[in-house]
Order: sequence, then structure tokens, then C-alpha cells
Amino acid sequence: MKIAVFGTGNVGDTIGSKLVELGHPVMMGSRTNDNEKAKAFVAKHNGKASAGTFADAAAFGEIVFNCTAGMGSIEALKLAGEKNLDGKVIVDLANSLDFSKGMPPSLAIVNTNSLGEEIQRTFPKTLVVKALNTMWCGLMVNPAMINGGDHNTFICGNEATAKEKVKELLKSFGWLEKNILDLGDITKARGTEMYLPLWLSIYGATNNGAFNIRIVS
Amino acid sequence: MKIAVFGTGNVGDTIGSKLVELGHPVMMGSRTNDNEKAKAFVAKHNGKASAGTFADAAAFGEIVFNCTAGMGSIEALKLAGEKNLDGKVIVDLANSLDFSKGMPPSLAIVNTNSLGEEIQRTFPKTLVVKALNTMWCGLMVNPAMINGGDHNTFICGNEATAKEKVKELLKSFGWLEKNILDLGDITKARGTEMYLPLWLSIYGATNNGAFNIRIVS
Repeated sequence: MKIAVFGTGNVGDTIGSKLVELGHPVMMGSRTNDNEKAKAFVAKHNGKASAGTFADAAAFGEIVFNCTAGMGSIEALKLAGEKNLDGKVIVDLANSLDFSKGMPPSLAIVNTNSLGEEIQRTFPKTLVVKALNTMWCGLMVNPAMINGGDHNTFICGNEATAKEKVKELLKSFGWLEKNILDLGDITKARGTEMYLPLWLSIYGATNNGAFNIRIVS
Repeated sequence: MKIAVFGTGNVGDTIGSKLVELGHPVMMGSRTNDNEKAKAFVAKHNGKASAGTFADAAAFGEIVFNCTAGMGSIEALKLAGEKNLDGKVIVDLANSLDFSKGMPPSLAIVNTNSLGEEIQRTFPKTLVVKALNTMWCGLMVNPAMINGGDHNTFICGNEATAKEKVKELLKSFGWLEKNILDLGDITKARGTEMYLPLWLSIYGATNNGAFNIRIVS
């Protein structure tokens, strides 16, 4: 499946590389078509990946992974253009972490709204699925790295079929079906995004980002 | 140790009952000294517990468990009176869940502030320790109920000695030392309070409140 990956940071590089490894044609999208990190990504993957503007990548992909920094996600998607996005699944991995007011970062969209909902509202013809935004990117594509892969990830979104597609991709990343918890519609993105301050606190207290949570009952 | 428990709801009753069982003299505090639930609590414990106003309870206790609903916590503590609280540890279990705007509830204090911080700021001579606010009250006092007791609870606060006291109490509730994670100062209450929407979503998706999270790495 042709996949667009928005964002050239660690998350975009990690997700894009895993998708290439799994055999998907991947185009990395960024603000310009000569982004140095995107060029390095393409070079690393020997012609199995390409790069372009957000609009190029959105036009290319059947599905879009939003791996941009949350503060810039809406703008990046606007640059991609509605006509390139409509009808497509947007897997939203971003958190609206706002570092402008000092540390720890706060969330720019929070409490009675979330970035996931804001993307869905701004692009009503897309199918937004919030996923993977609750952990360090290394674990997103390699859950087996810790605890034998037995820990949880969350998805939410308004469309069951879109969530099913994302679930299949997560399984291809190594996630066990029993550990992928569907929280419901896209409003549930509030919960997974608002978990970020706790994530940051745990990271700060343990000095280890390669952790996740497992629900026990 | 003489302990004040503020709040006559499920959390106050559960915490108070456990403290009585552990041999602590407990006074339950509420707005009036003739609260029916407080009277029932006292009756249930055959003279091993007492009840009074927030001020009575605060004067009685060497330590105060705030088990009031978060929206009313600051007011309850004001009714208790600074002179009855100063120098004491306040174990804050509350979350500022605001149901006034419909479901799901939002948080009244959030993102760049937290209820724990607000209590510490309003009563600067107290030692606020945020604890146990991330789970159903049945688990707070009986962690062994699930997963052999192997799951996590968080504490935070500005004073190491106060956190040590609370840690000892948590251990007496059955928490394993290795599972009590000290997140740092009271600003870390933002994280544990902002976890509530995710908690509510997991509860909604699983129809089971008797769950907790375990950090795996």
C-alpha cells in the first residue's frame, strides 16, 4: 500500500523506515521538496522511498501518517491540500506539545478538545485514527523490544473500517491484537494526548524512554 | 497515627475503613457535623472512628487524606482552616473532574496547573503529596486484588519527608515499594491528574474499573 509519511523528525524516520522494511512504497512529505532530512531518508532506503512536499506525499499515499510536531500538524495538513487528503485515512501520531512556555511542555489543545479531533474537524472528509502517540517512537515499530511485546497501545477514530486498517498496520509492526485497545470515537484522543504529561514525568523519574504501560486487571 | 479523612463518598469511606482496619484512629470530616454518611461510617466501625466538621477532623488528624470531590477540595480545606492544617501532610487523592459541561467530564484545573499544586499554593504551610488518584478506590487499599499486586502507583510532592510518610502508608495498604514511583515535586500532579481522561476511556472500553497500569520496560 502506498503510504505518505508527514514529518522528517525521529518519528517520521522511524515509521517510514519500518513501512519501507515491510515492503510499502513510502513518500516522506515535508514543507519543501528539498528537505535535507527527507533526502537522507530516501538515500538510506535505496530507491524504495521517495520524498516531496506535503501535497506531493498526500497525493501519492493511500494512507497518511501524521508524524509532524503537533503544533504544526494542522498547517502541514493544510499545505497538503484537502483534495489530496479527502477520503483517506490519516493516522495521527502527534501531540500538541507546546514548549514555548518553558518546561515541562503544556498541551496547546487539551481537555475539551484534542489534536485528533481538531484534525478531523478541519478535514471532515478524512478518516482520522489516533494511534501510537503514547510512547517513544522506537517502541511504536518494535513493541517486542520490551516485556516480550506485552504492553498496550490505543486507537480511536470515528470510522470502524479506518481503525481496522490501522490495526492491521499495527499488527504488522509487531503489536499483538489483544494489546491494541480501541477506545471509541475520535474524542477519545483527549485521553491519549493528555497522558503525555504523565509519560514525561515517568520518563523524567526513570531516565528511560523505552517504557510503556500495560493494563492489568 | 491520628488521621483525618475528608470526604464521605466512596473514596473517603474506602480509605477511612482501611485506616481503621490498620489500627489508626480516624476522624471523617465533612461540611456539617451531622452528615448521614459520616454517621454511618462511625457506626460501622464501632467506636474506632469518629466524625466531625472539616475543621474538627483537621484539628484531630496528624495527617489529612483529601478524598473530597476535586471541584470542592479547595473549599473543604478552607473550611478546615489554615491553623488546623499548617505543618501537616495532606495526601491529595482528588481530581478536578467537572461534570457540568456534560460527559465525558473535563478537568477544571489542567495543563499548566493541577489541583495538587493549587492546594499547595493555597495552603503553603502544608505538605501536599499527590497520591492514589489514578485508580478506582477499591484498588487503592487492596492492590493485591489484581495482577498479584504488581502494578504502579505514583506519588509527588515538594517534601521528601512527607512523601516518605505517605509511602509507608501506601506500603501498609499493600503496595510494593518497587511499584510506588516518586515522580518529583508537586507540579508532577499535572501528569497524574491529566491521566484521568485516559482512565475513563479505558474504563469505557473495557467495562471494568478494577484495572490499573503497570510500567514495563
